[in-house]
Amino acid sequence: MTTKQLVEQIHKKKSFLCVGLDVDLNKIPEHLLETEDPIFEFNKAIIDATHHLAVGYKPNTAFYEAYGLKGWRSLEKTIEYLNTNYPEVFTIADAKRGDIGNTSTMYAKAFFEDLQFDSVTVAPYMGKDSVEPFLAFEDKHTILLALTSNQGAFDFQTKQTEGQELYKNVLAVSKTWANSENLMYVVGATKAEYLAEIRAIIPDSFLLVPGVGAQGGNLQDVCKYGLNDQIGLLINSSRGIIYASKGKDFAEAAQAKALVLQEEMEKILASR
Amino acid sequence: MTTKQLVEQIHKKKSFLCVGLDVDLNKIPEHLLETEDPIFEFNKAIIDATHHLAVGYKPNTAFYEAYGLKGWRSLEKTIEYLNTNYPEVFTIADAKRGDIGNTSTMYAKAFFEDLQFDSVTVAPYMGKDSVEPFLAFEDKHTILLALTSNQGAFDFQTKQTEGQELYKNVLAVSKTWANSENLMYVVGATKAEYLAEIRAIIPDSFLLVPGVGAQGGNLQDVCKYGLNDQIGLLINSSRGIIYASKGKDFAEAAQAKALVLQEEMEKILASR
Repeated sequence: MTTKQLVEQIHKKKSFLCVGLDVDLNKIPEHLLETEDPIFEFNKAIIDATHHLAVGYKPNTAFYEAYGLKGWRSLEKTIEYLNTNYPEVFTIADAKRGDIGNTSTMYAKAFFEDLQFDSVTVAPYMGKDSVEPFLAFEDKHTILLALTSNQGAFDFQTKQTEGQELYKNVLAVSKTWANSENLMYVVGATKAEYLAEIRAIIPDSFLLVPGVGAQGGNLQDVCKYGLNDQIGLLINSSRGIIYASKGKDFAEAAQAKALVLQEEMEKILASR
Repeated sequence: MTTKQLVEQIHKKKSFLCVGLDVDLNKIPEHLLETEDPIFEFNKAIIDATHHLAVGYKPNTAFYEAYGLKGWRSLEKTIEYLNTNYPEVFTIADAKRGDIGNTSTMYAKAFFEDLQFDSVTVAPYMGKDSVEPFLAFEDKHTILLALTSNQGAFDFQTKQTEGQELYKNVLAVSKTWANSENLMYVVGATKAEYLAEIRAIIPDSFLLVPGVGAQGGNLQDVCKYGLNDQIGLLINSSRGIIYASKGKDFAEAAQAKALVLQEEMEKILASR
């Protein structure tokens, strides 16, 4: 998918919401556990109920790998379902991969060719030659970790590195890499005040923003500092949407939570 | 596996060699492609031919994920084969994972519980709460990326961060985390001269050292600076061993290459 197609979808749906599919068997409705593939059945219902409100879906690969072969099969079925039924949505493999050149190429093949995701999240620690193999794929997007939403972000990411915080150094340096137009960045919403400085370094890039709760928490702040000419934001919500109810109404409850966020986004877009 | 058991194995085999199982279908002998699971057949033959010369095996998960479900099944069969037939060897899932707390717990379950690896490689970028979930598993080991062997290591890892290179900061800070006795570190052999300074920060930890070629390249240097009281080194060789021949003699050829390294290690151990 091209960035242009993503932006068109945002304007059409009046939403820049991404739904995180972090599916834990201990948290999904019990009646689904009797089905052959509870994870896929859960995802399918969530996707069907929210596809008109969200522009992206982000399965976190850890939650699938934890269930071994069965989990990997659920992931495969989920992305196939998305690509077949809702080809307009932007799909993110939240995998946080990254390795030396030839190995990153294998990961890129796994997510871009075998599973046919539109994008994958990648960690920057191993530098240029660990990220460029992902960037080489046309119309695919590499979402580089910059400033994450967890407490551990302050262990290394915010430390002064050559006169600026490490995550800013990551932003600046990664812009010089081959095919850097295929880069997006992960920036945690818990640090909305950092967004103005981030936008100064990467004005044009899309940002994937986790950490916005079902209540819309600091969505206003994130938009104030993070929106750009082509919107440039994907706001992710996982647990706040998908675990809104543990009953048979789980999909409707997820839809209601997604609607609250979409409506808030629609207002923000209309007021620009 | 405990560190003590690993050290005992090293003394018994007179080897601290780890064989990297980075299996690319384009590089394995053609006659294997006719079998039902070429990757597993290849690994099985390599393991059978080298298990008395190596103390560890390190499948790189990228090479399995690239083949989708079939690849994941090959990985599962490989670790099962190792755990069943050679329970004394130390197994490493070279996965370079790392995510926020609850997600890292899912990855830890995938590799430690579902697949039953002894250890997994983890990236440090997301900090303490992304690594501690791995460290919480008893008798399992978390191998943190410190200084990698690729050119991209110079993009961020060697940059000055609070008065020291970032990778040294990672070493020092990670020592303060809960259950840090379960930490090992990845340190590239291409930078053997850095090992003296690394040992000053983490004298007791095991180091996983990639980048030593089939020729034994700078093995002497790595040992000179890296060995400690309990050996403290695992030297990995992947392509130099497993792709020694593309003919029907591939396992014997791999054995010969592993033997060269093991004999050199035996000499080094004897001369201490």
